[in-house]
Amino acid sequence: MLKLDFELDFKKGNGLIPVIAQDYKTGEVLMLAYMNKQAFDETVKTHRATYYSRSRQTLWKKGETSGHVQNVREIRVDCDNDTVLLKVDQVGGAACHKGYKSCFFSKVQDNDLKIVESKIFDPKEVYK
Amino acid sequence: MLKLDFELDFKKGNGLIPVIAQDYKTGEVLMLAYMNKQAFDETVKTHRATYYSRSRQTLWKKGETSGHVQNVREIRVDCDNDTVLLKVDQVGGAACHKGYKSCFFSKVQDNDLKIVESKIFDPKEVYK
Repeated sequence: MLKLDFELDFKKGNGLIPVIAQDYKTGEVLMLAYMNKQAFDETVKTHRATYYSRSRQTLWKKGETSGHVQNVREIRVDCDNDTVLLKVDQVGGAACHKGYKSCFFSKVQDNDLKIVESKIFDPKEVYK
Repeated sequence: MLKLDFELDFKKGNGLIPVIAQDYKTGEVLMLAYMNKQAFDETVKTHRATYYSRSRQTLWKKGETSGHVQNVREIRVDCDNDTVLLKVDQVGGAACHKGYKSCFFSKVQDNDLKIVESKIFDPKEVYK
């Protein structure tokens, strides 16, 4: 394990902390995912975003299938040491597996969800 | 309960979903907190950010003590319907109870945390 001079609080989330990925240049919030200690260490060491997949229960190197890796320019930690904010360069321009730049492509309107962004890639072409 | 034409997935997080608050104008990520269904409904209805406090185990109307309420300009939902992004006007200019605009005022540098933002208010003056 990486030796750090600070500790993140992984206890509240049963070993996981939420991690926000934000576009380094535009400030757009791209996605939220989770990290365990190993994923965090890997991200600090490699400057490539590595998360923990809750569904697959394994480390998830973002972009290993799609090629859309996230190069980490800055890592921020919040006041309670229980949330991380990554400022990233999103290779390929899209963070969402559904083909959008941001996973937050829907907004609440008239008590329903309305898609307000455009797709950057076709998921069928990228995830063959 | 508010009748909505979509459902959020509160199951993965034992009744809670993570919610990112972002400055509507600048795009700065201010904080991450949690909502249960009631807090989400309240936020949709009132356009004021209402969270669920995990430590106090109760609804938490952001700003009820400090006056630093968050007026919600837009509510985004992610592709898995398990995370919310609020675009807000932060009254008072500071979201963090420690006096900073954003809770993410520390960055990882040389394997330690370094404060890289300035305080906007003195917590001792606000939380008497």
